[in-house]
Amino acid sequence: MRATIMPKAHEIRIANVPDAAILEPTDAVIRVTRACICGSDLWPYNGGPNVEGQRMGHEAIGVVEDVGSDVQTIRRGQVVIMPFANSDGSCMFCEEGLQTACVHVGFFGNGTLDGAQAEALRIPLADGTLYPLEIAEDDALMPSLLTLSDVLGTGHHAAVTSRVRPGGTVAVVGDGAVGICGVIAARRLGAEQIIIMGRHEDRIQLAREFGATDVVSERGEEGIERVRELTGGFGVQSVLECVGTGQAMDTSMGIVRAGGAVGRVGVPHYEAINGAQQMFYRNVIVAGGPAPTRAYIDELLPDVLEGRIDPGRVFDRTVNLDGVGDGYRAMNEREALKVLIRP
Amino acid sequence: MRATIMPKAHEIRIANVPDAAILEPTDAVIRVTRACICGSDLWPYNGGPNVEGQRMGHEAIGVVEDVGSDVQTIRRGQVVIMPFANSDGSCMFCEEGLQTACVHVGFFGNGTLDGAQAEALRIPLADGTLYPLEIAEDDALMPSLLTLSDVLGTGHHAAVTSRVRPGGTVAVVGDGAVGICGVIAARRLGAEQIIIMGRHEDRIQLAREFGATDVVSERGEEGIERVRELTGGFGVQSVLECVGTGQAMDTSMGIVRAGGAVGRVGVPHYEAINGAQQMFYRNVIVAGGPAPTRAYIDELLPDVLEGRIDPGRVFDRTVNLDGVGDGYRAMNEREALKVLIRP
Repeated sequence: MRATIMPKAHEIRIANVPDAAILEPTDAVIRVTRACICGSDLWPYNGGPNVEGQRMGHEAIGVVEDVGSDVQTIRRGQVVIMPFANSDGSCMFCEEGLQTACVHVGFFGNGTLDGAQAEALRIPLADGTLYPLEIAEDDALMPSLLTLSDVLGTGHHAAVTSRVRPGGTVAVVGDGAVGICGVIAARRLGAEQIIIMGRHEDRIQLAREFGATDVVSERGEEGIERVRELTGGFGVQSVLECVGTGQAMDTSMGIVRAGGAVGRVGVPHYEAINGAQQMFYRNVIVAGGPAPTRAYIDELLPDVLEGRIDPGRVFDRTVNLDGVGDGYRAMNEREALKVLIRP
Repeated sequence: MRATIMPKAHEIRIANVPDAAILEPTDAVIRVTRACICGSDLWPYNGGPNVEGQRMGHEAIGVVEDVGSDVQTIRRGQVVIMPFANSDGSCMFCEEGLQTACVHVGFFGNGTLDGAQAEALRIPLADGTLYPLEIAEDDALMPSLLTLSDVLGTGHHAAVTSRVRPGGTVAVVGDGAVGICGVIAARRLGAEQIIIMGRHEDRIQLAREFGATDVVSERGEEGIERVRELTGGFGVQSVLECVGTGQAMDTSMGIVRAGGAVGRVGVPHYEAINGAQQMFYRNVIVAGGPAPTRAYIDELLPDVLEGRIDPGRVFDRTVNLDGVGDGYRAMNEREALKVLIRP
């Protein structure tokens, strides 16, 4: 079968690899019907600490092709959402809805588990990991359903961990696909003021359509000042940090209101959180991390199925496996917002 | 009148100062009937950035002697709890119960407002700040009621912001009076396992009487290991950080479970929170700050009045104004846990 491999930075190869197969009795194998490229895939693409020869991709919808002898609930032929992490569904972390801390957690496409930008994929702990859908594999909702694998759940996690509340004030740092899904999530949770911080006109436009009420294009101190101006000088109750750089985090700490919260979902590329004293004196909360998207599907799926939200609009380009390399390039050059893959 | 002044590090002077008096129509003046020395008073005492000639003390119970013309609810003769910060009681932060972020906040005994280790004290914004009690000024419950001014409310804030829950696992970093009140608060909120980290035998004993189930006397990596051993290798759901040093914070981050929270109430003497990546990957929350003790009195007072908790036991020495200097010395040398003052 064919799968996406990153031999080194800035190089994407579609390689022939051994067919995905059951290794453990709790495994399933899915045929990938939709996958996509994540902003976090661009970190190794740009020379981050990637694993040489890493199999890429951690977001997918697929059809179950095979199940191991111990799989109880997942069945051949089911259309399933694959969250970006596997989980056993039974440990105390899974029971609390934090599947990304599962005692058996594994992350797809990160060097330990194979990647989803491929024709097929082995899924460890299939019962705990996969979320079956009652829907045809080519349904028009597929792009939106695919966002439940990661990007919408991650934006939602930023909103939940930053405690977005009805009538609340929110800022979203970053206008990538996660930030835009953060706008959807904040709006969905009832936020009244949603400030998007970004500078790409088409993305800002999409964020506005999804409910952003204000736009701040300035960065650093200037950006902080602008958000303060828009909030009576106080800052916002909830900051969704959807970038992961030190500057984005410093900005987040500068625009959060006393008693407010910063929900981090951008993979952090900094070692320490600055301003520990100001954070203390202002009773600011810092939370967030890898989203337990598996837990959030129950809550978000009905809104997708019934058309109340349309997160699939973050995909502005579709490629097949042969187009994945160009998809990475296009996302990296901000030519595409998020690239959908139909293997 | 007489008041406590700190001319410089390690020097406490009881000085004659002008009588406390109404300056604004929203002021009250209280005669201080009980005050005390706080662990945070020891930071300037040991050479921290204190204000030369600072009037010390921020915890008190008193009797209202005078009120300004705009004071509506506070009346002469009332026995009142004075939280360590003043607040207007009407801004959006006060309405949310975060009086320590009030738009008119001031902190007693910190160089901007006068101190409570004195015969009397001017209270700005008396209606929003003071909490009247229906109790005689010499009631036997006074030591416990005095803890509602700061130390119990602060321990409770650590427990609330670290999300202590019924059946939960908790570690309290620090066996000072705040840490011991943190044990009371964690127990009160239903925690099942409460690990106290400290090494003073008498304090540990008191913590045990208040509900601590385990003791860890080791520090640093060894202490982290011990807490992990006591929690199945996972760490605790809630860490009450009641010290404020960088080491205490590093320990807190080392013993918190994935998905858990660190509630900081020790005034931080570090600039950054280390381990921002581990914190992220484990979805750890960091919260806390100056406790809105004014907001917590409603919840905690009945338990004090009805004897369900007895936080006044943290006071193990009582002095008059002339004994305040020796009280600082005794607390600083860990000879006393917390010193009560009867001016």
